[in-house]
Amino acid sequence: MTSSKNIKTAITPTRAANYPEWYQQVIKAADLAEVAPTRGCMIIKPWGYAIWENVQDILNKKFKATGHKNLYFPLMIPLSFMQKEAEHIEGFAKECAVITHHRLVHDADGKLVPASPLEEPYIIRPTSETIIGDAFSRWVQSYRDLPLLINQWANVVRWEMRTRLFLRTTEFLWQEGHTAHATADEAMQESLLMLDVYADFAENYLAMPVIKGEKTASERFPGAINTYCIEAMMQDKKALQAGTSHFLGQHFAHSFNIQYLSAEGKQEFVWTTSWGVSTRLIGGLIMTHSDDDGLVLPPRIAPAHIVILPIIHHEEDRKNILDYCEKLAKDLRKLPYHERMIEVEIDTRELTGGEKAWSWVKKGIPVRLEIGNKEMSADSVFMGRRDKTYKERKSVARQEFLNSIVNELDDMQAQLLKRARQFQQENTVVIENRDDFYKHFKNDGGFALAHWNGSADTEAQIKQDLGVTIRCIPLENKSAPGKCIFTGEPSAQQVIFAKAY
Amino acid sequence: MTSSKNIKTAITPTRAANYPEWYQQVIKAADLAEVAPTRGCMIIKPWGYAIWENVQDILNKKFKATGHKNLYFPLMIPLSFMQKEAEHIEGFAKECAVITHHRLVHDADGKLVPASPLEEPYIIRPTSETIIGDAFSRWVQSYRDLPLLINQWANVVRWEMRTRLFLRTTEFLWQEGHTAHATADEAMQESLLMLDVYADFAENYLAMPVIKGEKTASERFPGAINTYCIEAMMQDKKALQAGTSHFLGQHFAHSFNIQYLSAEGKQEFVWTTSWGVSTRLIGGLIMTHSDDDGLVLPPRIAPAHIVILPIIHHEEDRKNILDYCEKLAKDLRKLPYHERMIEVEIDTRELTGGEKAWSWVKKGIPVRLEIGNKEMSADSVFMGRRDKTYKERKSVARQEFLNSIVNELDDMQAQLLKRARQFQQENTVVIENRDDFYKHFKNDGGFALAHWNGSADTEAQIKQDLGVTIRCIPLENKSAPGKCIFTGEPSAQQVIFAKAY
Repeated sequence: MTSSKNIKTAITPTRAANYPEWYQQVIKAADLAEVAPTRGCMIIKPWGYAIWENVQDILNKKFKATGHKNLYFPLMIPLSFMQKEAEHIEGFAKECAVITHHRLVHDADGKLVPASPLEEPYIIRPTSETIIGDAFSRWVQSYRDLPLLINQWANVVRWEMRTRLFLRTTEFLWQEGHTAHATADEAMQESLLMLDVYADFAENYLAMPVIKGEKTASERFPGAINTYCIEAMMQDKKALQAGTSHFLGQHFAHSFNIQYLSAEGKQEFVWTTSWGVSTRLIGGLIMTHSDDDGLVLPPRIAPAHIVILPIIHHEEDRKNILDYCEKLAKDLRKLPYHERMIEVEIDTRELTGGEKAWSWVKKGIPVRLEIGNKEMSADSVFMGRRDKTYKERKSVARQEFLNSIVNELDDMQAQLLKRARQFQQENTVVIENRDDFYKHFKNDGGFALAHWNGSADTEAQIKQDLGVTIRCIPLENKSAPGKCIFTGEPSAQQVIFAKAY
Repeated sequence: MTSSKNIKTAITPTRAANYPEWYQQVIKAADLAEVAPTRGCMIIKPWGYAIWENVQDILNKKFKATGHKNLYFPLMIPLSFMQKEAEHIEGFAKECAVITHHRLVHDADGKLVPASPLEEPYIIRPTSETIIGDAFSRWVQSYRDLPLLINQWANVVRWEMRTRLFLRTTEFLWQEGHTAHATADEAMQESLLMLDVYADFAENYLAMPVIKGEKTASERFPGAINTYCIEAMMQDKKALQAGTSHFLGQHFAHSFNIQYLSAEGKQEFVWTTSWGVSTRLIGGLIMTHSDDDGLVLPPRIAPAHIVILPIIHHEEDRKNILDYCEKLAKDLRKLPYHERMIEVEIDTRELTGGEKAWSWVKKGIPVRLEIGNKEMSADSVFMGRRDKTYKERKSVARQEFLNSIVNELDDMQAQLLKRARQFQQENTVVIENRDDFYKHFKNDGGFALAHWNGSADTEAQIKQDLGVTIRCIPLENKSAPGKCIFTGEPSAQQVIFAKAY
């Protein structure tokens, strides 16, 4: 029941030794995803995809509760649509996959080549404001049609040069919400409401603390008036933009002629928003909680909560032990846990107890139960919790375990959030002058709160010198006004600087 | 509480007058989908997409129960992959969307044009056997890795020349299951098992009776050894292929070198299958049940089961009526109905009772409840069921309604299946000679059971003469052997001929 000497127990390298490589190895050991033969793309494997399905289930409930309906728009967008909003196309032109032909033929050498060129090329959606704007112009006629609140789960393609599993891939999966409103105020409220939904989801399901803020002009979504974001801190102290919500003003309303007849009988342009989170969240989840033993999954997002590992030393015990495990699983599956039932796996593979246990440690399952002859005789379970060390396993009477498991999972969820929040707070500093700022980011990372004069030139200089960007202008816990630490000019509030993914 | 004279109550044209146009108008009146600006594509609107989400939920449970896991593969497939299986590429080359560039630039006139050509073009998946075969060759090493049972929900693109909402669109949504097995027998069993899953789903959820059969060589999936299918009959008596399951033999195993080390220590090629159903199912659902009043939805697949229509004639009654409706909805939502809870909409739009009722008739909702002062005073509901005529509405005491609603929905589900099965049976004939066959299909449609000698030439001639194809060689209720009605040659069993979508 202990791990044998030849089991590869930990992830190589450690976080301290090589964080980016550790990240890749955690994904590999947990079998979450792998690099695809299509450049910059990934194959999301069952354990990784099951996390994404949980993301979808939870967010769908939240979107529905806030009045949004799911639908589906085409993957391919006519090129002419992209051109209608000038800033939008400037932002995406460099990374558009373009479909130019709709047939393949064999050339004289028997090689397959594209044929039947399209009159107008299509691009694969990098985002869908344009094709949805076009539909909104047909769907919105009167004030009675507003607000129009929709969402789609879709794949998108942005041709990225440097890719990394989950964090930045050429194709990724996401949801994109799109809404139209009668007034600027309502649209702004919607943008901020969905930001709150994202923050709530990140903190209470992914156990990933985030800071809500607004992006500076240089980091805005192409075509937006304001971009709001949630920013998380990874264990290498870099920032991860984990979700964005855009107040688009009337830019797309004008470009796509989305007008409504007001109650007063006047033709008015609508105000629109869009907001999205993607499979990037899974990258954030991995980098927030995982340790040198591999993936750590908060119970509320884990594909399964508990794995039962039958430990059979003597063949004659097999049937009794398996029966004991099956009954235990059956009892556990009757327990509700946060809008689903407790999900249990039984691992009957022909491996040693140690091999099995460590394979599940690396998959990040919240609770492991080793069940051998000893446990069966004592009517107990031998439990390990993923947020504790491997050695901290303990024997618990079966009924006591059944009575306490929901609390145990809740406790693990809370501990993970607490630990991540503490890490974020410990690695956030206030910096009062330029020299300290440069010294800090040459030696260290994390979030730096500092006053800034609002100038894009200052931002660009810092980015060039240090690779550090303004992650956001916080919406909550704002500092008092002060003076820009770079120019001495007035500053309304401190902003958050960090290196970022 | 009755429909006012100026409400457009029925679909124009009727089924009898113009079936294809009726189909488009049913979709429009139910607000299921609309034609997209992208050629041959559709926008699936919330009511249509919610049906698809139910399809996904139900099939996901069935796939999971049969041991399959969901995952996700890239949208874009390297061109060279498509070429590895010769029959496969011949089948799909004519309809492949090809990505040739990954950037857009402005030309001298300011026009956006494709730039940065790809070294190797990508095609958008028309199906994923090739890129999944490549992964299987890495994932399968030993007999312990088998069977490998996976599924993905994805969008695919096949460049279709003649498109129709749901039935045939350039982009469509589907699931594609892919499995690898150690033996031919196991792979064959898997193909047939998944065909059973589809047939069960079609009949017991969509209330759409289907015939399970095998395709003839000329209708086989490109690269398959056997293609099995479920065939349904639409109300215009045409056949709809509603799902397919392929036994792929070792074709893809050889093309992608998918080998395993057997328990006996030998390198062996695997045997693979693939199977899929798509948004086409929604087209089948529409054409199986809908009537001249619009869409009819079987309760088990309907996005919502019941709509409550508050009928407010006097403003002073508003609050009481709405409270009564809210309480009723709350009570209904506590009732379980086939693995979900009863779903209820309350329509509070400022329309007349008749306008509201008819808009929900056209959306196909199974049960409508009109609630006015009269119903509230009598503690009753005024109920209409979508499979009965509009006039057959009746008053039911509230508590009695709550007690009987689950049975009521089950009854409607059963009635719809019964009606559809009866239609299919009434329009299936056995034909004994060539003249009758030609006469039949010149005057009428439906399914014709006839003996056939197995010759592709015979099939081609019939297709050319009549536009009639062999839909399948039935797997169940097989006829005795006989003689081909076209050639007099021996025939193992009757096959099903029909015009088809």
